[in-house]
This record gives sequence, C-alpha cells and structure tokens, in this order.
Amino acid sequence: MSIDRFDQINPPARLLMGPGPINADPRVLRAMSAQLVGQYDPAMTGYMNETMALYREIFQTQNQWTLLIDGTSRAAIEACLVSALSPGDKVLVPVFGRFGHLLVEISQRCGAEVHTLEIPWGQVVTAKQLEDAIVKVKPKLVATVQGDTSTTVLQPLAELGEVCQKHGVLLYVDATASIVGNELLTDAWHLDAVSCGLQKCLGGPSGSGPITLSPAFVEHVRNRRHVEAGIKAEHHTDSQGAIIRSNYFDLPMILDYWGEERLNHHTEATTMLYGARECARIVLQEGLDKCIARHQLNGEALAAGLTGMGLELYGDQSNRMNNVVGVVIPAGVAGEAVRSSMLHDFCIEIGTSFGPLQGKIWRIGTMGYNARKDAVLTTLAALENVLRRAGFNTSPGRAVDAALTVYGA
Amino acid sequence: MSIDRFDQINPPARLLMGPGPINADPRVLRAMSAQLVGQYDPAMTGYMNETMALYREIFQTQNQWTLLIDGTSRAAIEACLVSALSPGDKVLVPVFGRFGHLLVEISQRCGAEVHTLEIPWGQVVTAKQLEDAIVKVKPKLVATVQGDTSTTVLQPLAELGEVCQKHGVLLYVDATASIVGNELLTDAWHLDAVSCGLQKCLGGPSGSGPITLSPAFVEHVRNRRHVEAGIKAEHHTDSQGAIIRSNYFDLPMILDYWGEERLNHHTEATTMLYGARECARIVLQEGLDKCIARHQLNGEALAAGLTGMGLELYGDQSNRMNNVVGVVIPAGVAGEAVRSSMLHDFCIEIGTSFGPLQGKIWRIGTMGYNARKDAVLTTLAALENVLRRAGFNTSPGRAVDAALTVYGA
Repeated sequence: MSIDRFDQINPPARLLMGPGPINADPRVLRAMSAQLVGQYDPAMTGYMNETMALYREIFQTQNQWTLLIDGTSRAAIEACLVSALSPGDKVLVPVFGRFGHLLVEISQRCGAEVHTLEIPWGQVVTAKQLEDAIVKVKPKLVATVQGDTSTTVLQPLAELGEVCQKHGVLLYVDATASIVGNELLTDAWHLDAVSCGLQKCLGGPSGSGPITLSPAFVEHVRNRRHVEAGIKAEHHTDSQGAIIRSNYFDLPMILDYWGEERLNHHTEATTMLYGARECARIVLQEGLDKCIARHQLNGEALAAGLTGMGLELYGDQSNRMNNVVGVVIPAGVAGEAVRSSMLHDFCIEIGTSFGPLQGKIWRIGTMGYNARKDAVLTTLAALENVLRRAGFNTSPGRAVDAALTVYGA
Repeated sequence: MSIDRFDQINPPARLLMGPGPINADPRVLRAMSAQLVGQYDPAMTGYMNETMALYREIFQTQNQWTLLIDGTSRAAIEACLVSALSPGDKVLVPVFGRFGHLLVEISQRCGAEVHTLEIPWGQVVTAKQLEDAIVKVKPKLVATVQGDTSTTVLQPLAELGEVCQKHGVLLYVDATASIVGNELLTDAWHLDAVSCGLQKCLGGPSGSGPITLSPAFVEHVRNRRHVEAGIKAEHHTDSQGAIIRSNYFDLPMILDYWGEERLNHHTEATTMLYGARECARIVLQEGLDKCIARHQLNGEALAAGLTGMGLELYGDQSNRMNNVVGVVIPAGVAGEAVRSSMLHDFCIEIGTSFGPLQGKIWRIGTMGYNARKDAVLTTLAALENVLRRAGFNTSPGRAVDAALTVYGA
C-alpha cells in the first residue's frame, strides 16, 4: 500500500441539512483543537465539573449526576438502559418510529422483558394510552424517544412523566434529536434519565453522549454493587445477583469517576469533552429559550418554503419537531436522484428515510449551527431548482418567498 | 448559575510524561478541526476506507476487517469480547497486571466462564504455562494484554499465538499501550483480534478504538445472527440462542456499516475518525519500524537517566515496554508530593500507580509525540531538581548526562 495516496483531511464544503449530523459550529471545532491534559489534572477535573454544570442548564435539571458518556448518542442510550435493566425486568416502550425500535432492541440485549406500545408511524402516544399499558404491564421502566427523526414527530412528555410518577415507574427519554431545538424540562416533567448527543441541535460532532440521571434513577442503578477491574473485591450486581452487562457503560462506576471519589474508569475522551463543553456554552450564551425559538422559526420557514413550492409535508404537523421536516417525495420524481443532484451540484445534503418510509419521504433538517436563515433559503432555492429540472411543476421563487414571509422580511 | 464563569477552553501547557494520555500531535488536532460531512457522503466513506487501509499497516495485517470502535480503548476491548463470548463460553486470561484484571472483569460481564492464569505482577507468561492451562481449561478464547502499563511489562506474543493456533483457540490481544511503540505482528503471530486506542504511542486523544479481526474471528462472531433496531426481523444470536449483549458494540452490525453494505448503525464519530486517520498517517510517514525504534531509543535514554540519578527501576527490564518505565519511589520520599511539584512547578505530569503498586512506583512514559529527546531530558532535569529538594541524594546533572550517552551525544 502506498500511504502517499492518502492526503491530509480536506472534506468538501457540505451544507448538512439532513436529520443529522449537521455542520459543527466552528467554535466547537476550535475548542476541540486545544491540547490535552492528564486525566486527573486539576484543569481536567475542573472542565468536567463545568461541563456537568453547563449540561444541568441544557437538561433543565438540578440533577447532580449530569455528565458525558464517551461514545455517540447510541452509547448514551445503552449506558442508561444496561445500567438500569436486570434480566427479566419489565420495560414498556412506545414505538412510533425507528428509534423506538432501537430502544426495544437494546432493552432486549439487556435481557429485559420488553413490552411495546405500537403507535402508527407519524403519530404520538397519549398519556391515557401509556397509563393503560402501565397498569397492564406493570413495568419497572418506560423508555421513549422525544423527537424521532425517522418520522419528524415530537412526543409530548409532560403528561407521560406525571403518569410514570403516579405509578412509581422510572421514565427514560432519548432526546438526541430534540434537545435545545425543542423544549425539554427534565425536572418539571419528572424524567428520570435523559440522554442525547452533540450532532443535532447542539451543533457538535457525534462522539459524546450527555446524560442526566435523577436521584431515584441513581439509587436504582447503585443498588447493584460495584467492581473496578478486579481491584475491588465485589461485582456490580443487583439483589438477584445479576451483574451489569457492560463495564464500559456501568453507570455507578462512571459516576465514581465524575464524582469526588475520582475512581479510575476509562480514560476520558478529552477532546470530545472540550467539544461538548463548547456546544453547551454556545447554546447558553445565546440563551436556551432563544435557541429553541430560533429552531422553531427556521423550522417554520423551511416548512412554509416547502409547502409554498407545492410539496406535501409528512406526519402530524401539530406534533412536528422544530428542527426537521418530512417531505413527501412527489409522484414521478426519483427521490435518490434529487438527493444526489442536491449533493453533487449544490454540495447540500438532505436526508433519506428508513423502514416503512424508505423512498417515500425526504427529511430536511435545520438545526444547531445550520438553523440559520441563509441555510434555509439556500436549501429551498437549490431544491426548487433541482425539482424543476426533475419535471416537478412549481413556480420559480415561490419557496423562498414563502419562507421570507415567515422570517418577516 | 452564571455561565459567564466558564471561559473558553484554555488548558495549561502540560508535558504529559505519564503512562498516557499524552500530548496529542498538533497535526492530529488540526486534522480534527476539519468540518464534518454526512454519514454516507462519498468523502466520508472514502475516509473510512482509507482509515481501514492505514490501520492494516499499523496492525501489520491483511485482515479486511480493520476499523474503529467509537469509544475509548476500553470500548474497543469490550466490543471484541462481548461480540465473541456467549454466556458459558470458557475464556482463559493471563493476569500479570491491572489490565489483565480488566479483561477478566469484562469477560465476566459477558457471562463467560473465566479462568485466570495468575502471574506475579511485573513478570510475563510463558508459552509453556499458557499451553498447560489451555490443555486443562479448553477455552474458546484466550484474552491477554500486550503491554500492561500498570507494570510496564511487555508480554511476548509470537509463541502464545502459535500455541493458540495449535489448539484451535482464538487469541484476543489488548495492544492499547504498546502499539507502534513496540513490535506487533498481527498476522505473523496469529492474533485473531487486536484492539487499541489513540492516546498512547499513536499520539492522539482518547475516544477512538482501532481494532483488527481475523477471518476466523469474524466467522465466529457472524455465526450469531443479525438484527438492526427491529427493522430486520431476526436477532443476533448464536446456536444456543444467546444474543450479543450490546447493540452499540455488536461487531457484525458494525462491520455491515464499515463494509460495502453500508447498513446504518450509529452515526460515526467523524471528528475522532479524522484524528485516528491522521495518527496512522503520521506513524506511517515516519515509517512503522522507525517509529518503534524512536520509542525504544527514548525509553532507553529515559531509563538510563533514571538509573543514572540513582533510582531503581521496577519490573523485569528484559521484558519492559519501550514506552513506559516504572521507577521505585525512594525510601523517605513522598511520592505524591514529588508528582505534585513536577506538575505545579514544571507543568510536567508523571504517573502514579494502582493496586499492589500504589505508592510504590511512579510510571514515566515517553510515547507518541512525546517520544522526543527534549521531552525526556526536560523530564529528567526537572525530576532531579524536585528529588534533590525532597532530600534525595543525587549528583546534579548525572541524569541528563546518562541519557545523553544513550542518544550518542
């Protein structure tokens, strides 16, 4: 092999307007270029503590245990579920899109007894539906997605949290695609564990998974005893002797590293921590409410532009995520050819879709650094151009005009 | 909370001369500051393929399945073990340091029946010892560490590989701390799975775990069937119906993402991939043999300087890793006070130690970007100064003189 073939990293200048990942905020990339410090350096533990404080604001919580999992958003999901679920534990999962299926599948890997509450894709679950299922199943944990990018639908959570609290059931929420682009109130809504990632509205690269854990959730996972690499004598088991099925994702051990004990676990992914910290700083400097409002404005402008072009939106628009819009691929238009022209002619990425929606909708996102007027207008103008060349009948300029109306220009 | 308290990332200018993490090569940090592209962008899949080719050189293998796990080196260990081991499978682990204990503990989490071959810390296992244990235990897999930084000892692997091949046992090796600082020949030594991380001799930040898998290892893990998030109908189970206990670390699914099928798994940690790719480029541009020789030279100079200062080295020096030296803390010297003075007066980090060696040795590393003459001499001069002020009797300048002799100056 000639390694000379492989030049330095020099990616094309994409505008990433799919369901994520999106372009990272340049400030995040600059923060990630800072040099490393040691795992227990006072500077490092200081940055860890600051990151915990910043993400308490992001998650809108007083939870002490608010920290990062060293992996992508999926790693953060798995850390929450594998630490909470013992074999045979009952889990209830509302499934209304692809990422509900993922929660089912991960729970099954944990050996849990998984019950699903199947909702048609594009709809949400009601508190009544959830309560009926809880009464029937009597689960230890309910696991749900907040914003499922596969359908663009945002699950309302306030009432679900109340129902879970009333029945003494722990509630886990995957907020990867929704956080800081949509309202999320961990404490007010009684959410026991919430996880996310950086690569959506937080404006960073994939590879770090912020989580927050309620005192009740932490007490539950800590009832399993603790082991560190044979150095301690005991294993981390629950009262039935069931060990947590992962060392890397063993939350009690990870908490002992992030907490004052500073017990050694894996070497923290320092550069990703620098990035996660900067993502939160950017959002909080703008103001969390303003950040969410910005996502709402740009999402509405995008939706208005798409309908103005004569396209049909997918799913229940009254429960649509602010930051991603599903667009029905018009009859007679080759969906993948349009995406390819957007990418190769305009360097703009829009999203395909999965499962039952494959080939039926595109998903267009406006999130994080790319929740900007220029990004939305550029995408609309390019898409209109590509669609007209693909034979779709639309009047030039109508998409951008409709979006500009939303922006108030 | 006032977020204004938290300024931009601006870490102190440490010289990291512990057992890792070490300072990242500035080239790696620059590569990681490149903007993102989409998960299936031709540029992204191109970079993934190039990364696979680069790490085949690093691992000295023809293995097709040579790729990155999105997490730290510990994540890469767990991905190999959890994908290979079904509940009840017999594993044999030689334990001669902290990281052997970690392999035991992770294997137990997988539900395996774990047998250990206990070797006194600071020594290595012989092929005869391993073969006797294999004959007795009849394991499916042997899991061992190559370079255990807890003891600074390098386990010779060529004969172990032969023994495992002879008995039809799979051999997994954790090469996190040793790779590119010490010889590692995956194919020539018949290693079936090898994992590592970036934060040691590869000169990058923690957070990406390169692995390579032999065809036999891949065939073994693929004998478990496959599921993706409920989209596919089947679960990933072996002939006994035992499911792989992790979705995130399910190697057959990850291979289908890195392979030509490009099936969706988690969103690749793009920035970490940029970093991992640059780490490998730097090593291969220097030349792998030259890189290992540079670690050997600097490790010898460091060891000579330390003994020249009148310090005693720890462990079997005939099997010492090139890139880390254990130093016995002299009687009457407060080990942690010395480390603290090194950090706060000189901004140099040297390592403490764990378990039975806690408080008994320091560990000083010279690896990756920090396997340099100036870094070694600076560390020796500073340590000599700190030790003299701590009451240790040594002649000024002898440490650096002894190191310079090794450098041939």
